[in-house]
Amino acid sequence: MRRKLRMGMIGGGKDAFIGAVHRLAANMDGLIELNAGALSVNPEVGYESGKLLFLPDNKIYKNYEEMLTKESELPVDERIDFVTIVTPNFAHFAPAMMALDKGFNVVIEKPMTLTLDEAKQLKAKVEETGLILCLTHTYSGYPMVKQAKQMVSEGALGSIRKIMVEYPQGWLSTLSEREGNAQAAWRTDPAKTGKSGSMGDIGTHAAHLAEYISGLKISKICADLNIVVPGRAIDDDGNVLLKFDNGSNGVLVASQIAAGEENALKIKIYGEKGGMEWHQMEPNTLIVKWSNAPAQIYRTGNGYMGNFAQHNTRTPGGHPEGYLEAFANIYKNFALTVDAKLNNEEPTSEMLDFPNADDGIRGMAFIENVVASSQSEQKWTDYKI
Amino acid sequence: MRRKLRMGMIGGGKDAFIGAVHRLAANMDGLIELNAGALSVNPEVGYESGKLLFLPDNKIYKNYEEMLTKESELPVDERIDFVTIVTPNFAHFAPAMMALDKGFNVVIEKPMTLTLDEAKQLKAKVEETGLILCLTHTYSGYPMVKQAKQMVSEGALGSIRKIMVEYPQGWLSTLSEREGNAQAAWRTDPAKTGKSGSMGDIGTHAAHLAEYISGLKISKICADLNIVVPGRAIDDDGNVLLKFDNGSNGVLVASQIAAGEENALKIKIYGEKGGMEWHQMEPNTLIVKWSNAPAQIYRTGNGYMGNFAQHNTRTPGGHPEGYLEAFANIYKNFALTVDAKLNNEEPTSEMLDFPNADDGIRGMAFIENVVASSQSEQKWTDYKI
Amino acid sequence: MRRKLRMGMIGGGKDAFIGAVHRLAANMDGLIELNAGALSVNPEVGYESGKLLFLPDNKIYKNYEEMLTKESELPVDERIDFVTIVTPNFAHFAPAMMALDKGFNVVIEKPMTLTLDEAKQLKAKVEETGLILCLTHTYSGYPMVKQAKQMVSEGALGSIRKIMVEYPQGWLSTLSEREGNAQAAWRTDPAKTGKSGSMGDIGTHAAHLAEYISGLKISKICADLNIVVPGRAIDDDGNVLLKFDNGSNGVLVASQIAAGEENALKIKIYGEKGGMEWHQMEPNTLIVKWSNAPAQIYRTGNGYMGNFAQHNTRTPGGHPEGYLEAFANIYKNFALTVDAKLNNEEPTSEMLDFPNADDGIRGMAFIENVVASSQSEQKWTDYKI
Amino acid sequence: MRRKLRMGMIGGGKDAFIGAVHRLAANMDGLIELNAGALSVNPEVGYESGKLLFLPDNKIYKNYEEMLTKESELPVDERIDFVTIVTPNFAHFAPAMMALDKGFNVVIEKPMTLTLDEAKQLKAKVEETGLILCLTHTYSGYPMVKQAKQMVSEGALGSIRKIMVEYPQGWLSTLSEREGNAQAAWRTDPAKTGKSGSMGDIGTHAAHLAEYISGLKISKICADLNIVVPGRAIDDDGNVLLKFDNGSNGVLVASQIAAGEENALKIKIYGEKGGMEWHQMEPNTLIVKWSNAPAQIYRTGNGYMGNFAQHNTRTPGGHPEGYLEAFANIYKNFALTVDAKLNNEEPTSEMLDFPNADDGIRGMAFIENVVASSQSEQKWTDYKI
Repeated sequence: MRRKLRMGMIGGGKDAFIGAVHRLAANMDGLIELNAGALSVNPEVGYESGKLLFLPDNKIYKNYEEMLTKESELPVDERIDFVTIVTPNFAHFAPAMMALDKGFNVVIEKPMTLTLDEAKQLKAKVEETGLILCLTHTYSGYPMVKQAKQMVSEGALGSIRKIMVEYPQGWLSTLSEREGNAQAAWRTDPAKTGKSGSMGDIGTHAAHLAEYISGLKISKICADLNIVVPGRAIDDDGNVLLKFDNGSNGVLVASQIAAGEENALKIKIYGEKGGMEWHQMEPNTLIVKWSNAPAQIYRTGNGYMGNFAQHNTRTPGGHPEGYLEAFANIYKNFALTVDAKLNNEEPTSEMLDFPNADDGIRGMAFIENVVASSQSEQKWTDYKI
Repeated sequence: MRRKLRMGMIGGGKDAFIGAVHRLAANMDGLIELNAGALSVNPEVGYESGKLLFLPDNKIYKNYEEMLTKESELPVDERIDFVTIVTPNFAHFAPAMMALDKGFNVVIEKPMTLTLDEAKQLKAKVEETGLILCLTHTYSGYPMVKQAKQMVSEGALGSIRKIMVEYPQGWLSTLSEREGNAQAAWRTDPAKTGKSGSMGDIGTHAAHLAEYISGLKISKICADLNIVVPGRAIDDDGNVLLKFDNGSNGVLVASQIAAGEENALKIKIYGEKGGMEWHQMEPNTLIVKWSNAPAQIYRTGNGYMGNFAQHNTRTPGGHPEGYLEAFANIYKNFALTVDAKLNNEEPTSEMLDFPNADDGIRGMAFIENVVASSQSEQKWTDYKI
Repeated sequence: MRRKLRMGMIGGGKDAFIGAVHRLAANMDGLIELNAGALSVNPEVGYESGKLLFLPDNKIYKNYEEMLTKESELPVDERIDFVTIVTPNFAHFAPAMMALDKGFNVVIEKPMTLTLDEAKQLKAKVEETGLILCLTHTYSGYPMVKQAKQMVSEGALGSIRKIMVEYPQGWLSTLSEREGNAQAAWRTDPAKTGKSGSMGDIGTHAAHLAEYISGLKISKICADLNIVVPGRAIDDDGNVLLKFDNGSNGVLVASQIAAGEENALKIKIYGEKGGMEWHQMEPNTLIVKWSNAPAQIYRTGNGYMGNFAQHNTRTPGGHPEGYLEAFANIYKNFALTVDAKLNNEEPTSEMLDFPNADDGIRGMAFIENVVASSQSEQKWTDYKI
Repeated sequence: MRRKLRMGMIGGGKDAFIGAVHRLAANMDGLIELNAGALSVNPEVGYESGKLLFLPDNKIYKNYEEMLTKESELPVDERIDFVTIVTPNFAHFAPAMMALDKGFNVVIEKPMTLTLDEAKQLKAKVEETGLILCLTHTYSGYPMVKQAKQMVSEGALGSIRKIMVEYPQGWLSTLSEREGNAQAAWRTDPAKTGKSGSMGDIGTHAAHLAEYISGLKISKICADLNIVVPGRAIDDDGNVLLKFDNGSNGVLVASQIAAGEENALKIKIYGEKGGMEWHQMEPNTLIVKWSNAPAQIYRTGNGYMGNFAQHNTRTPGGHPEGYLEAFANIYKNFALTVDAKLNNEEPTSEMLDFPNADDGIRGMAFIENVVASSQSEQKWTDYKI
């Protein structure tokens, strides 16, 4: 890269969760600098937040419209290169569309939009503008997830037959949204989060992971969404039977009422010759199981790793990389791609390996399909996009 | 106990798998001795097997009918106390019925019979005769499974909300039934194994475990059974959505085509206050997870264990007990119960804690219900017994 | 085998710990039957214990002298084939010598004797009589330990460079010997247990394991034995630096005051090409680590295991075998060896693979050497036998 | 903080390992910016490295002397606030002394200097100048290490009795220093790394960790340092018996020839009431073991963690933090402390919780003591500082 890219952040004020994570991830490699912010719907909070982040006054904006407008009027070498949108789901679409219209690349927290229809419009805008949109499906940023994907794509397991993915969390085991937990409040409010709770928030991650590693697409589903904690408007738990486009089957579980669980995303994928297992909470280990030989423990940072994993690794084996490094990989690859484009170079396949608008559409389709299936008495429904 | 109980074995000749396991389990505690056998449909194999097991010639029978008839004519103190039936599924019912008719208690390998109807007849016979029938759902014999059941029943987790049980194996990943694997041959043959493959062989274990620990009953299901390896007549894989009679939900996966897996039965159960996780392949550990406190590692053989776990433990903490010990617990409790009955004593609740004809009926019902559901286009079907 | 071997037990009355373990192990495979007993120094307890074990009155003896004398006078086909000695350490030597003199094979709990001198006399007696002596260093009976030994001997790791073995337990973290714990009482009493506590009780296991797997012999030591809980007469904890006869180095830790530990024997062994790690509390897994390739997970019961592990395995992969199975392997191999000898056959190398008097001598030498080293101000002392 | 601190880096050019790690760590929280560099002894490499890091030409210096001199002449608001020294060990002392003399705070990679004498001089200089010196003993930056320290200091385990710390790596299993591995080359060269290899490079980390968590000081040692791979001048492996100042004992193992190991630092610490175990390669888990209750699994990011762990955590439970986050904690606390000092505020105890010159002296003392002990035939030697 020739210079640090300049990031403008929309949302992510001082009490937000995911905005801080985005900044940590964007900071890590020294390729990106926070340059501007419209950090809160409350301009006072936004200003205070900007000062805590050492932004100069003229780069702290009252709202995203002001930021996008004024930034687009600045000289090129003072202007932000991209925006990061870390607002609640309902507030993704409008700033993303405006940013693209104003010529800015976009990083956006998942799920991409509030509805599938918005997602399709957003993708059309990306294609129209030729700009880069990156969606932060964090878990696909882990080196061992990339290793799994590469090994599967190279046929290590033979044809894929079965995928089991589960994502239990326990943090919504009680009605914490009524006890002052702001994260819980908007994530359980369909007006802000969309028509699904658990499936939108974490089921989309699980579905993305299954499709990303396997290279398959979900083609049919049978969903059972549940409101386990009385008083909620949308699902806090769900189980989904899956069929993939190669005929293989699967199960996806996402739950936010699995009391005692932290963030226990796990995936198992089986092919003709063997299987793989990866646990997000011990992310540097990929177990590869064979029918007639000892299982193998692939570990981040070793010389035997494939090029995608190596490209997304910062430290030698045994120096654990974590969630923020996975997140930072998405930012790094986005930044390398933007930089290549700014310099009329072709990004490599490693650079381009970050979730994009297509993934965003599939995520929104996942939400709409599981909600529809759950409301149906028919067992299998075709996956519609 | 006053003396060793005398066991007569039906099936379990020299090349059989599960018969040898039953003998190891029955031997362990020194409460049971192998006294007679009709060990094979081939009398020569049966004789040879009997000699390898040090049976005297007059206790090696040509077939079970001969054994049951002749044994019933022997003086009481020379006669077997019970039979163990370790034939393929289709050959459970007839010898079990005859054994009960002749006055012998019965141990029987799961699934109890070939059909639900047989299972009901068998239970009626048990009630009619007042004899003891024990079904070897091995996994309920583990100390930590009993600890989990006891803690749940005492309310440690609060009301149960969700159960995830999975049982992946890989040994049927290829058509090994056509390559001389006798175990595979009868287990994939519906005439011998019944109308389900994977669900009958291992799904029943998973369902039993879920109901045993939780104290709940499956009330509705939505099943997806699959023939993954082409050329099979019945399922070698399946996924089932569950509803339990308290309204909680669950997922059950049983697969024998999960290449690279050994015998990876795992269960997770969540309640209002926390969750539990148990892995059969590391059976001496029960993880108990709490919403607002560190998870705890319960371990076999420690002083803090409940009375059911303690009763089923032979060695101090850190001296791992395994599959055979779990199996032996079922035999031990069966033997203690038979002995109590022989001596007109009341068995304790710890002694009576082994699977019986009711569990056998639920197992057969599970098979029939999942097969019916899998063939249905309706999402949910009521669990019929 | 032609018939079950007949076992006479010395010690192991109704409240004993290790005697019950020996019986469970001897029972398991149906190759051995308990035939006689001198089960307690208290004849009343001995009689009561014998009845609980279903021994006939004429096979319950007042003491071992009576048992050995009377059994030796019985007809060959009524007489015991071997004795098992499960008394405290100080009471191993005399019955073992007498048993050999009377023509009985011997199984003996470790450490073999109270002193190295006794051990040497016992070995001389074994050689003189040509009888079989088996020492129950249980941990060498695990299939994965045998796999490790075989792989090392076949050069999988190249020349061995370093061994780390640790054996922490917590059960003597308090003065439980003064609170009615009979096990603790004799094991902390030098008159009964010998001149070392922790090193004699568990350090000998650790040393045996290191030498058994590596095929090396300890040649120099530097020991630090500690009395951590005030009031004890002998070590309850210790650390030993090791040199082996090929020049490699090692560390051995044995502690019974490691509060919170159960029986956490672990070994790591490194060679030029890779390393191995085995944990007794998860005994069916052997991790094999390579310099330039993913580590491998060897697991009991799989087809890729070597002949020694296979010979010592009873169930397929994923059906965990535990401590009692490891113990039973020692009994099984002893029984097969005795049976071969009784029938003038040559035992196979798999049958002969159980600890014997040579291991007993090395165990006693270990105790005497570490105690001497610990009392010395010299760093390294040659290992004397 | 009021503004980002400005960092000047000494060493850490484009092919260096640890310099890149320092930058990743310093970047992460957005509290520090790389402002200047003397990145290589080769000015051309230094210039090229600076450009890759987006430094302006006037902030890329030919050597550290130039950087320190010129920076000290800049206006305060253009000048660096501190230097980070990431050169090989022999090149720590001179730039650190000069930096302090010129008024700059210092971050320095461990071990602090080449000799204990240098370490003492450096500490005297720190005291003389009143500036801040931070030593990057990374592993003490992990939240769970801080939790362990806090729980021990609050008496959770009672009086400490035993510490076992091991640090096996495999990367020096061959003479890679002769195969172009620059890291291996200087770390095995006593002129550049100091008088110890494995003990200086990683043994110091292990010793620091033991003292940091326990709050104890090593008081006596008995060391066995080894050159395992022929052709080396200094130890690549070693084992050390320890005594601490409260009378407890311990063992420390550090090896760089443990083939197949990555960076497997582990510590176990036992007190009267229980024990703790932490593994660097799964750093978000701290197992706390109790004598009479189930062990507990403390996990990073949960509400039950103490204030020190919480202060050093960025993400909620289940979002794994890794090596870089631990490293970043040291930089964050250093930065907060420098900022407090710049603003005449009192740093909190959480801010001050980073390794300093005292830790550096103990590290150098560790090296000198283990080397001396290893060369001695006397068993125990007093730990001299």
